[in-house]
Amino acid sequence: MIKPSLPKGFRDHLPAEGHKRGFILSAIQDAFHRYGFQYIETPLLESMKTLTEKYGEEGDQLLFKVLRSGDFLRKADQEALEAGDSRAVARSICESGLRYDLTVPLARVVVQHQSDIQFPFRRYQIGPVFRADRPQKGRYRQFTQCDADIVGSSSWVGDVEVLKLYAEVFDALGLKVTIRVNHRKLMQGMLQHLSLSEQSAAVLSALDKMDKIGEDGVCKALDGIGISENVIDEFMAWIKQSDFTRVYNESMQEGRDRLEKIVEVLEDAVQFDASLARGLDYYTGMVVEVVSSEIEFGSIGGGGRYDELTKVFGGQNLPGVGISFGLDRIVDVMNALERWPNASHGKSLILFVHFDELGMAKGWEYIQQLRSLGIPAELYPDIAKAKKQLKYADQRGFTYVAMLGDDELSSNTIMVKFLDQGSQRSMTFDELITALNTES
Amino acid sequence: MIKPSLPKGFRDHLPAEGHKRGFILSAIQDAFHRYGFQYIETPLLESMKTLTEKYGEEGDQLLFKVLRSGDFLRKADQEALEAGDSRAVARSICESGLRYDLTVPLARVVVQHQSDIQFPFRRYQIGPVFRADRPQKGRYRQFTQCDADIVGSSSWVGDVEVLKLYAEVFDALGLKVTIRVNHRKLMQGMLQHLSLSEQSAAVLSALDKMDKIGEDGVCKALDGIGISENVIDEFMAWIKQSDFTRVYNESMQEGRDRLEKIVEVLEDAVQFDASLARGLDYYTGMVVEVVSSEIEFGSIGGGGRYDELTKVFGGQNLPGVGISFGLDRIVDVMNALERWPNASHGKSLILFVHFDELGMAKGWEYIQQLRSLGIPAELYPDIAKAKKQLKYADQRGFTYVAMLGDDELSSNTIMVKFLDQGSQRSMTFDELITALNTES
Repeated sequence: MIKPSLPKGFRDHLPAEGHKRGFILSAIQDAFHRYGFQYIETPLLESMKTLTEKYGEEGDQLLFKVLRSGDFLRKADQEALEAGDSRAVARSICESGLRYDLTVPLARVVVQHQSDIQFPFRRYQIGPVFRADRPQKGRYRQFTQCDADIVGSSSWVGDVEVLKLYAEVFDALGLKVTIRVNHRKLMQGMLQHLSLSEQSAAVLSALDKMDKIGEDGVCKALDGIGISENVIDEFMAWIKQSDFTRVYNESMQEGRDRLEKIVEVLEDAVQFDASLARGLDYYTGMVVEVVSSEIEFGSIGGGGRYDELTKVFGGQNLPGVGISFGLDRIVDVMNALERWPNASHGKSLILFVHFDELGMAKGWEYIQQLRSLGIPAELYPDIAKAKKQLKYADQRGFTYVAMLGDDELSSNTIMVKFLDQGSQRSMTFDELITALNTES
Repeated sequence: MIKPSLPKGFRDHLPAEGHKRGFILSAIQDAFHRYGFQYIETPLLESMKTLTEKYGEEGDQLLFKVLRSGDFLRKADQEALEAGDSRAVARSICESGLRYDLTVPLARVVVQHQSDIQFPFRRYQIGPVFRADRPQKGRYRQFTQCDADIVGSSSWVGDVEVLKLYAEVFDALGLKVTIRVNHRKLMQGMLQHLSLSEQSAAVLSALDKMDKIGEDGVCKALDGIGISENVIDEFMAWIKQSDFTRVYNESMQEGRDRLEKIVEVLEDAVQFDASLARGLDYYTGMVVEVVSSEIEFGSIGGGGRYDELTKVFGGQNLPGVGISFGLDRIVDVMNALERWPNASHGKSLILFVHFDELGMAKGWEYIQQLRSLGIPAELYPDIAKAKKQLKYADQRGFTYVAMLGDDELSSNTIMVKFLDQGSQRSMTFDELITALNTES
């Protein structure tokens, strides 16, 4: 006997949560369609070559690697094996891994299928991504991202479209959020001004941990990479101010121009945040992060502009911008706020209960007729006591229960219980159809 | 530079195919909802313990294994390493693998979450599964299964429900199919009658390859496992006849009873096939396989009853029955038959084109207003020549193109081109809204 369990950090979603996830997904998909994003699918597995060196050194450590099939030891790096060098051995026995996000696969797709795609390419994709992170609150090893991206244009329109999309979806979900924006060019220009361009990756990585390690932690990290106290002070003062118009060089000017356009179009739907870093290496322009304004829970969405990501795959460079909705975190926030509308509970409509083979056969006829009319209907599939069948109806949350006892069978009627109201009434099948049609 | 490519046997689905997939999925999901199946999600990864020894020896070879993260060599089986025994080493360095189907994960779920589930449990799940098979026509290493199962009842109702579901979905898709059914008890009873019970797994496995290796191949395989010519002849004659009422023992009688009930309820919607084996080890009752009646393409769906599958995970035994739609194969068949309705082409509605920043800004206002009315609308995001923008509109397949030139901007009108008809007309924004509302 095997104890039924999942690998650490992975979760099942039973029907109650499945409905909630479906509710959020359909709000997101509705908006994606309204904005003209088109659906694509890429595989869960990508070549290790595609995945590595895209997410920073930390990201590389968090990739799930898939073992070559067959006799993989034959191709293993013998030297590394003898040296006990797990990383080098992994490179020789794993050719592919689980995708870490949906953005790098998109960059691969647009280069690989360049001649079959019309640019500007507006695509959406929804699916699981994987990170071998230490599991903790709000952090899962498999989580679902819902991404919308525009590739092949560097205009402000793409930036404001994806930001507006965020505002609309969270509004539709009834969540109050803060949409923080910054611009990598503004940040890089500031680092240049402070003569920190060489340490830029380390500085951004420290800054990105602000939520976890606090301001002191960030200062310590900056000190750790050898930045002088004065410079740290100047940098920390700068990231805390909210004025992006003070610029010292061309790079900052470029960031300022785009941020001004964004704020002109979207006004206070977005909030400038000079401290916003975003962990991923590939951003080059606007960066965005969404947090709940009602509860502390980390980011529930993030994205930005990546105008050079496709370069690594060769061909013509294709600028892009995109955002991601973190489905699992949004569920967590809506759970914490108890913000679920009735529509998300997924009630079941009608269950036919019965007491012998005759009743069950009659029930089968009825549900088939209802289903053929597009009305969802179910039949208790076993001969069982009324109590058991009614308990099931109650637990599943049916609106109606249709009982088929001897009296009903002989008079060709149905005794319908209204579970919400606690009442019941005998009716013909035609009357039942009318009642269900008003309901569904 | 990295050449953009995918691991062997994996595929991307661009928008044109994404729409087609979405079209099929929504027909399947509609039916699942009408039948009262509830949505669940399980992770893509399962413990190797959960996956192994469920799909036969061949299945075990086809599992994709995921490398432990971190310093995996420390926990590696040193003896096996020295012996170069890849299989044994894999067991020590991989704890989890990619799921092979959705049925074994369901069995795990119902035992693991037994107290949170109402039985009979009607669940559906749609998602990718993985098999490290040799890629070939119609066989992919990642493919999408759409499964509906009823767990916790062994009644005939479940069997006929899932069969009827097959008939309805393929009918909705406009595909003519043959739904072949058999019963494992009938088959096992026959093997018992022929004193072949001990070789039953090998016989079923040979039989399952009939499509690939032909009748001669099956006979050779049976000969290869040491079955005498006489017995082979008797067995081959039996699997070719279509009479399930001739039974020799209790096991066959049990199969016959259920098949009689199925045929009584569903009549000629299903077709008895004594040769139908189905590869998977876990079936115990009715087995089913769906093939196109219009084209040779292997199975596009399969399933059956597995009344003992949950046993291995302990607890109370829960009988189950279920079916799977093979999304990728259904796409292949519909492609081969060119059977796509217009609805599956995913036309885009309206694109605003413009010639300067002013026109682009006006276009932004218009698309935002249309989207807020629930009407999908797009704006070409860059300043570009009319020809380029119109070519894009044409390639993407928009129904309308709204042009915003100087004349339109000064007169507050929009020049609307009807791409299908090749005509154009100037209208106000309100008139455009009316036109789009009738369209969408």
